[in-house]
Amino acid sequence: MFDVTELPLIGAAALRARSAARVLRTLPTDAKDGALTAMAEALVEHTDSILAANAVDVAAARADGTPESTVDRLRLDADRIEGVAAALRQLVALPDPVGDVVRGSRLPNGLELRQVRVPLGVVGIVYEARPNVTVDAAGLCLKSGNAALLRGSASAFETNTALIEVLTEAGEKAGLPAGFVELLPADRASVGELLNARGLVDVVIPRGGASLIQRVVRESRVPVIETGEGNCHVYVDASADPAIAEAVVLNSKTHRVSVCNSAETLLVHRDVPFLPRLLRALTDAGVTVHGDPAVLEAAGAGAPAVLPATDEDWAAEYLSMDMAVRVVDDLPEALDHIARWTTGHTEAIVADSATAIAAFTAGVDAAAVLVNASTRFTDGGEFGFGAEIGISTQKLHARGPLGLPELTSTTYVVTGRGHVR
Amino acid sequence: MFDVTELPLIGAAALRARSAARVLRTLPTDAKDGALTAMAEALVEHTDSILAANAVDVAAARADGTPESTVDRLRLDADRIEGVAAALRQLVALPDPVGDVVRGSRLPNGLELRQVRVPLGVVGIVYEARPNVTVDAAGLCLKSGNAALLRGSASAFETNTALIEVLTEAGEKAGLPAGFVELLPADRASVGELLNARGLVDVVIPRGGASLIQRVVRESRVPVIETGEGNCHVYVDASADPAIAEAVVLNSKTHRVSVCNSAETLLVHRDVPFLPRLLRALTDAGVTVHGDPAVLEAAGAGAPAVLPATDEDWAAEYLSMDMAVRVVDDLPEALDHIARWTTGHTEAIVADSATAIAAFTAGVDAAAVLVNASTRFTDGGEFGFGAEIGISTQKLHARGPLGLPELTSTTYVVTGRGHVR
Repeated sequence: MFDVTELPLIGAAALRARSAARVLRTLPTDAKDGALTAMAEALVEHTDSILAANAVDVAAARADGTPESTVDRLRLDADRIEGVAAALRQLVALPDPVGDVVRGSRLPNGLELRQVRVPLGVVGIVYEARPNVTVDAAGLCLKSGNAALLRGSASAFETNTALIEVLTEAGEKAGLPAGFVELLPADRASVGELLNARGLVDVVIPRGGASLIQRVVRESRVPVIETGEGNCHVYVDASADPAIAEAVVLNSKTHRVSVCNSAETLLVHRDVPFLPRLLRALTDAGVTVHGDPAVLEAAGAGAPAVLPATDEDWAAEYLSMDMAVRVVDDLPEALDHIARWTTGHTEAIVADSATAIAAFTAGVDAAAVLVNASTRFTDGGEFGFGAEIGISTQKLHARGPLGLPELTSTTYVVTGRGHVR
Repeated sequence: MFDVTELPLIGAAALRARSAARVLRTLPTDAKDGALTAMAEALVEHTDSILAANAVDVAAARADGTPESTVDRLRLDADRIEGVAAALRQLVALPDPVGDVVRGSRLPNGLELRQVRVPLGVVGIVYEARPNVTVDAAGLCLKSGNAALLRGSASAFETNTALIEVLTEAGEKAGLPAGFVELLPADRASVGELLNARGLVDVVIPRGGASLIQRVVRESRVPVIETGEGNCHVYVDASADPAIAEAVVLNSKTHRVSVCNSAETLLVHRDVPFLPRLLRALTDAGVTVHGDPAVLEAAGAGAPAVLPATDEDWAAEYLSMDMAVRVVDDLPEALDHIARWTTGHTEAIVADSATAIAAFTAGVDAAAVLVNASTRFTDGGEFGFGAEIGISTQKLHARGPLGLPELTSTTYVVTGRGHVR
C-alpha cells in the first residue's frame, strides 16, 4: 500500500485523481464527449481571464531575459485559444477506445473470453513551456477515460492554472468527477514525487527535450512511456531513383529541422553516382554537411559548408540545418551504422531494389521504417490517428505515434456458468 | 551509448545476445522451428549428462538442508526431460507472431501504412529454482525471434549449464547465431548488472516470488514486464446461484493453493442467505477462514477454524488453505474493498443480475475479471494461448497471461513513391 505522506506536494491531487479514475473508467462516451464540448466552449468564453494570466507569465519570462522565440511558445492570443478549443472538439469526433473488444472467442469448455480495452487509470504528464499541451493532455486523457496529473513548467504556471480552472469548472459542471484533471506544483521536487508515486500513478509520459526524458526514464519507479529523441537516418541505396532520393533527403532534413522526425544522418551507397549532386542540393538549401572522407572527396576541394564528421556527428540529434553524411560499402554496412547510432525513432531507405527494401525493413530496429518517403511522415496526424500525445521510441506497450488506444490497457473478461477446473 | 566495461559479469554475453538478436529478427519461421525440433531431440539424447549435472545440484541442495519439496522442484529425471523437450515441440505448432500485420491501411496521400510485429530484441529472464524454466524461456524467446539472457538460481547452476550447453550446440548446428541464448552467472551481482543494462537489454521479465519481482521492479532501468502476485477476490452477489457460488468459491480457493490465480479473499453480499453453508463448505474442505465480525456471527459460536480477520488478512496472498471472508453491504462496498487491496491479477463475481455483473466488470481494475467462473481460469493454457511466460499484472504492454505475441513489439513500415511533406 502506498504511503501518501511521502508525497507532500502531489499526494492530495494524486488521491483525488485516483478516486476520479474509478468513475472515469465507467463513463459512457457521450458523457465524455459532452464534457469535452463544454470545456472547449468554456475556454473560448474565458479568453480574457486566460490571456490576463498568460500576460503575467509572458512579462515574467521577458523580465528574465528569455529569448523571444521561447516567449512566443509561451504566449497565447485569442486565435491560439480558439486553436486549443478546436483540438478538444476534434477529440469528440474520434472513436472512444474504451470498451473495444481487442479479441474474443468461445473456449472449448464454453467460457466466453473477451479482451476489452480499459483506461490506464491515472496518467502523469511532465512537459515544458507550451500551454497548449495542458489542454491537449487533459482532453486526450479524458477521452481515453484516464485521470490526468499535469506537471507543466514553472514559466507557464499562471497560464496553466487559469486553463485548468476553466477546464475543471466546465468539466465538473458537465458531470465529470472532481480530480479528473489536476495541475501539480511546478517545482522540481514535484516531478520527483510523481516519479515515485508507484501504486497511485499508473504511467508517466514525459513530453519535452532529451534531458527531461532522460531524467524521467532514469528516476521513475512508475512505468514510463518514453517519447523520443530522433537521430533519424536516410539510406540511399545503389538502386535509388535520383529524383526520389533528392526529394526525400531534402524534405527529411529541411522541411522542419527542430522536430524529432527530421533526418540527421544520410548514408549513401558507394555506387550511387549522384552523390555530388545530392551534396550540392543540401548545401544549396543551406544545410551544413558533416562528411566522412569519401564525402569530402565527392564534394570536391573547397566545397561550401562541408566539414569533416566525427563520432559526435553520427550521434548528434542536430535539430538544425546540419546533416552528417557517410558513404557505405553496402547495405549491411548501412545497417551496422544504424544499429550503432539509432535512437529507434525513424529510419528511411530510398531504393528501387525489392531485395534491398526487404533487407532494410527487416534489419532496422525502429518505431518506423520509411520506404521511398520522407522521415517527416512519422506522425500521428499523418498516420491518420487524429490526435497524438507524442512518438514513442520504446519497444514495450506502444511504439511510434501514440494515439488514444495507446492510452489504454486491457482486461480479460471471462464469463462462465459456474465453470470450475 | 552503453559502456560495457560497467558490466564485468554479463557484458560479453549481452553483447553476443545483442548481435544474435539482429540475426534472429530476420529468421524465417521454418528456421526457428527446425532449431526448436533439433533442440528438443538433443535434450532427450543428452539425458544422461543432464541428469549427471542435476545430481550435483540436488546433492548440494540436500547437503544444505534444503526442504525436500524444494529439492523436488530442482530434481530432473528422464520423464521430466522428455516433458521439457515436449514443450519445445509444442512451440513449433504455435503461430510465429513475427511479421503479423497488426493494422494496415492506404493513407489518403497514397502511402501504404503497415504496423508489423517484430521481436523485442534481447530479453532477460530472472527466475528461481525450476530448471524447466531454462528450456521454456529459451524456446519462447527463440520462437518470438528474441535472444535470451537467462539468469537462473545458483542452486540449479550445474543443471542450467548442462541444459544451455545442449541447447546452444543443437541450436547453432541448426543455423542459429552464437548468442541466441546465454546463461548468466548466478551470483546476486549479475542481476544488478542485468537491470542496469539499458540499451543492451530490451526487457527484463522476473519469474518467481514476490521479493524477486519487487527487487526487479524497484531497481531496474531496463523496462520490466511484471509478472504477478495475486490477491484474488471472489465476490458473491445477492443474486448469486447458491450452487454456482459454492462451486466457484471452493474451486478458486482449494484447487491449487500455491498459485497466483487462486483466491485469497471472499466478499459476500449481506443479503446472501447461504453464507453459513458457504463457510461450512470451506471449513469442511480444510480451509481456515479469517472473518470479519459478521462472518464470525454467521459461522456461529464455536465454529471450527474461523478466526477474526485483520488488515493483514485483507492484504495477504496466503498461497495456503486460508481465506479472508468479509460481508459487504452492497456491490459498491465490494468494489471499494477490491480497489483498496487488489494486486490487479484476477477478480471474480458470482451473480445472476446482469446489472451487478456489468457494474463489477466495469468497476474492477484487474488483468482478468471472471464472471461465474473460478479464478483458476486466468492462465495462458486455459485461455488457449498455448504457451505462457507468466501472468502480467501491470497495465502497460501486456496484461494477463503472456503468450508469444506479448514477447514482440511493432514497427510501422510506411511505403511511398517519393512522398514528401
